[in-house]
Order: sequence, then C-alpha cells, then structure tokens
Amino acid sequence: MQDQLYTFPICQFVGFKGSGKTTLMNTFISQYEKIGKRVGTIKHHGHGGRPDAVEGTDSFLHMTSGATVSSVAGEDIVQLTINDEHFAINDLIKMYEQLSVDVLLIEGYKEASFPKIVLVRDETDLQLVKQLNNIIAVGVWDDELMNDISNYYTFNIHHIDKNLHQLFDYITVKLTESINLT
Amino acid sequence: MQDQLYTFPICQFVGFKGSGKTTLMNTFISQYEKIGKRVGTIKHHGHGGRPDAVEGTDSFLHMTSGATVSSVAGEDIVQLTINDEHFAINDLIKMYEQLSVDVLLIEGYKEASFPKIVLVRDETDLQLVKQLNNIIAVGVWDDELMNDISNYYTFNIHHIDKNLHQLFDYITVKLTESINLT
Repeated sequence: MQDQLYTFPICQFVGFKGSGKTTLMNTFISQYEKIGKRVGTIKHHGHGGRPDAVEGTDSFLHMTSGATVSSVAGEDIVQLTINDEHFAINDLIKMYEQLSVDVLLIEGYKEASFPKIVLVRDETDLQLVKQLNNIIAVGVWDDELMNDISNYYTFNIHHIDKNLHQLFDYITVKLTESINLT
Repeated sequence: MQDQLYTFPICQFVGFKGSGKTTLMNTFISQYEKIGKRVGTIKHHGHGGRPDAVEGTDSFLHMTSGATVSSVAGEDIVQLTINDEHFAINDLIKMYEQLSVDVLLIEGYKEASFPKIVLVRDETDLQLVKQLNNIIAVGVWDDELMNDISNYYTFNIHHIDKNLHQLFDYITVKLTESINLT
C-alpha cells in the first residue's frame, strides 16, 4: 500500500481480536475531543463482513436499487454509504481531508503503514511487533512482556488510567513529528 | 441557499410526504444503473430526526466518544457518519464529486435550487408547483390535475410503466442541458 501525505496526523490501533483496540481508541477519541480537536475515525470491520446494521439504514435501500453512493441527512447527522469494491483506505482518508479533521484514528488495517500503537496480549502476539512497520508504542497486558520489547515505548493497558496523560502526550508529539517529517 | 457548479447532473424529487418520491427515485436509480451510470443519492430525513438505525451502527459508537466523522469499512461497503450541525447540502455534494458519480438524485430539500421533479397528489399540492423554482417535470396522481399545470412536462405517476422511457430520456436531456448551460 502506497502512502500519501496528509495534512493531519494519523494513528492506527492494531492488535488481534480482543486485544483492547476499541477501548483504547475510544479513550483517545475522548482525549482529543476534550482538547477541542475535530476527530475522525475509521474502523476496519475485518473478516466479519459488512458493517453492522448497514442493511437496516435508509441509505441501503438506495443501494439495492443500484446506487453506488447514497446518504441520508437528518438533524445533525449525515450517514453516507459507499458500495464500491475498488474504494481503498487512501480514497477514504482523502474524504477526511475534505471534512477538515484535526486528527485521524484508525482501528485495524494492519497492512497500512501509518504510525501505530500495537496491543499485545501474550507472547504469541509479539509476532506483530516484529512484523509491523512504523510502530510508535506498544501496549501490553502483562509487564513481563515488556522484557521482549526493547525498541519501543511500552505501557501496560491495565494501568492506563495512571499513565494516560503521559501516553497521550507522547503519542501526540510522535504524531506531530510524523507530519512535520513528511 | 447558494448553488455551486458541479460536473455531474443533479435532479431533485420533491413532494409532500406520501406523494411517491421514494418509489420514483428508486425507479430512476435503476434506470441510470442499467445504462452503466455511477449513481449517487441523497435523502433528506426531514423532520423525523436522525436517519434510521444510525444508533445501531459501529460508527455511531465512535461518535459517542467524541468523534466528528467516523466510518466503518467491511467487504465492499464503507459507511461514514458525520456529526456536524454546520455540514450543509453543498458540503455533502462536494463529497460526491470526489466519489466520481455520473449523476446525483436527491430526495427532498425543497428549498434547494437544483432541477426538480415535483409530485402532486391533489389540488392542495399544486402550491408546490407555484412556489418552487427550476422545475423540469411534474408527476400527478390524477390526469385532471394536468389542466392546472400548463408550463411543465407532466406525467401520471400511475402510468409510469408506459411512459418511463420517454420520461427518463426527457429528464436526462434536461439534466445534461442544465450542466452545459452553467
């Protein structure tokens, strides 16, 4: 996958199923929102098929008639559905530029090469740390796993409450660097 | 509302609740899809509040944590949700440009000034034909209503099967003109 340059920092949350990606990502969404940032998020639904509830939405009805892109707007919400097998993650990120987000947090998409926080539950999961590129921090479920991770900033996700502000500041600085370096 | 220039034709389907907008719009979606067009659609959810089912979607969970824009991608579907009270119809249409649609069909948004098909169920609904601008055709529920509509192409929506191809060709020509004239 070819990376492009974007005007906002992008951070991926990567790990196997059940490793705590969603919880950590939601924590970061709240932190950025608290300091007034306009946060964008992308979640890869993975091998579980189409996003949940998509078939119950108004916009899906237009899809069944043959629409490629459909949206429903009401109150303060617009829900847009794209049905296009050629639509890639970079096409999607371009839309976030148009939507003027300040930071983009991505859950999943291991194969993408944006700055990453990797979550490691046990020794088996350590393979991810070896395989993936552009890691900026590793969250472990057990302090002992830290011994096997020497090159990265590590934190214990069970003690995140205590370390959250330090971790958040560290990640934010790292992400800002990744923008300025490109 | 200020209109902008777009590279694809835009057609609105306008009428009171229960006048047949959704059915006619779905018919047009299918017609354009059959001739190989990439169709975009927008539906205004009106006074009924937020789009249906939005609160059951994965992307809505990120909203509750504070995200402004969130999406979930899986298989051939991307579902994107924007939670921004300042996001207007023209901002949304700009996104369809980036998504390279060939034609955009809009259900509702009476106050917008794109070319319109107006649906008229009874004499009371005739007020719409007087009030709205940029009407290119009027669909009536009863032939007698045609007597009151002298300036526009009219069709009976109950006989649409017989007249569909003629209507479709007429609308398509009108929409193409509206692009070339701008």
